[in-house]
Amino acid sequence: MRSPRFNHQFTVRLADTDAAGVVYFNRLLERAHEAYEAWLESAGIGLTTWMEAGVQLPLVHAEADFLAPLTLGRRVRTLLLPGPPGRTSFTLDYRFLGDGDALLARARTVHVAMQNGESIPLPERLGRMFEQE
Amino acid sequence: MRSPRFNHQFTVRLADTDAAGVVYFNRLLERAHEAYEAWLESAGIGLTTWMEAGVQLPLVHAEADFLAPLTLGRRVRTLLLPGPPGRTSFTLDYRFLGDGDALLARARTVHVAMQNGESIPLPERLGRMFEQE
Amino acid sequence: MRSPRFNHQFTVRLADTDAAGVVYFNRLLERAHEAYEAWLESAGIGLTTWMEAGVQLPLVHAEADFLAPLTLGRRVRTLLLPGPPGRTSFTLDYRFLGDGDALLARARTVHVAMQNGESIPLPERLGRMFEQE
Amino acid sequence: MRSPRFNHQFTVRLADTDAAGVVYFNRLLERAHEAYEAWLESAGIGLTTWMEAGVQLPLVHAEADFLAPLTLGRRVRTLLLPGPPGRTSFTLDYRFLGDGDALLARARTVHVAMQNGESIPLPERLGRMFEQE
Repeated sequence: MRSPRFNHQFTVRLADTDAAGVVYFNRLLERAHEAYEAWLESAGIGLTTWMEAGVQLPLVHAEADFLAPLTLGRRVRTLLLPGPPGRTSFTLDYRFLGDGDALLARARTVHVAMQNGESIPLPERLGRMFEQE
Repeated sequence: MRSPRFNHQFTVRLADTDAAGVVYFNRLLERAHEAYEAWLESAGIGLTTWMEAGVQLPLVHAEADFLAPLTLGRRVRTLLLPGPPGRTSFTLDYRFLGDGDALLARARTVHVAMQNGESIPLPERLGRMFEQE
Repeated sequence: MRSPRFNHQFTVRLADTDAAGVVYFNRLLERAHEAYEAWLESAGIGLTTWMEAGVQLPLVHAEADFLAPLTLGRRVRTLLLPGPPGRTSFTLDYRFLGDGDALLARARTVHVAMQNGESIPLPERLGRMFEQE
Repeated sequence: MRSPRFNHQFTVRLADTDAAGVVYFNRLLERAHEAYEAWLESAGIGLTTWMEAGVQLPLVHAEADFLAPLTLGRRVRTLLLPGPPGRTSFTLDYRFLGDGDALLARARTVHVAMQNGESIPLPERLGRMFEQE
């Protein structure tokens, strides 16, 4: 497995849950995206950097597998694993871990770089985030 | 009481609920705003009309009172009651009714009209929405 | 292609959008789930029916592909296509269509039937929803 | 002014924003509730404690004033100020501060204590959270 590049943490809040007593499924993807935003910020190239430069990074695909119920108050650790980048796109994998590093869920998002409505090569500072050490 | 000017309907969806088994409180305010958007659209001046004209209508205040638990699958009718408009702002009241028109909750939002970061008089087509018949 | 079994409609609301000016990706999955809830209700077996019977139908997988930007105020038609059911699980596909039936996005959710923390065969009334005409 | 009792911090995430480029109003109330949940947890009496004890603490009122636009990536500090408790209810005030402690927004939530559908006196461990030092 590729090595995780970034760690993020969250607590399951009431707003994340639904009447079935667990996390409403799409909120896990929001938590994934939150880790992605924090990862970019940690490198000084948060989403606002790109917006100001007129570069969009829209999602073209998202998916998630739910392996265990995520209940209110639970502390979860998100591992972010950057995939090998494409020329105009990039893929991020996420692992959600509970106590004892039990795997609770995983997710993936695929993004493309765009400018003026056209796909563009990944900006260099962004592409560099995906180079394996 | 001012007479309601617009009727909207929704069903409580799983995404609206939380682990306490009822609507998570801030989702009711989303349902209020949804009725406001539909009201503007019904007059041919939806939010996109204003965005394209460079006019913002940000909320400066929102509040809600919760009178009865709103459970999954429940059908709710939203009544929208426009308040007397100010020169640069307007107020909307909302009533949420269940079966037999039981009052389940109420809400209020206050908006200002802005352009280029400055408050402006309500655009005429918008102000006209608040004239009492 | 399997034939769509259910039609649902929604308007992109401000709450669905983000600072990039389009639908925040996970809200599309919420709209998919909303169509699934409405489909069950149309057959008289809404989610509350199952909750009251002690049956859970948790998602184990969700995915979405985004083909075109979904902007504020846009009216979208959701087609729901039930897949061939498994013994203890079922799959739903969704197509999101705009004007002229342009395909804007698609999604899939996979659910399992559970009771007392164990997976169970699909309840008969639910399984019948997946029989092809 | 009563002295703040608890500090919480968050970063404005893409999911918090809308097509107007700022925080969608009801998400601020979610951030307020998140601070309330963290405050209870810091005292070892998180929401799950009460749920397990069969005690509900539903909101009966919520309100917010928006004083400045909250944009993507902004770091915000939430101050929580417990109000004087009632016999069966309690009030929490929130201040949202940006750089240089500029006041960006404020909010209030009012909760009641309930058990078996009836309002009850505030549980002692909860009431103690509201005693002024």
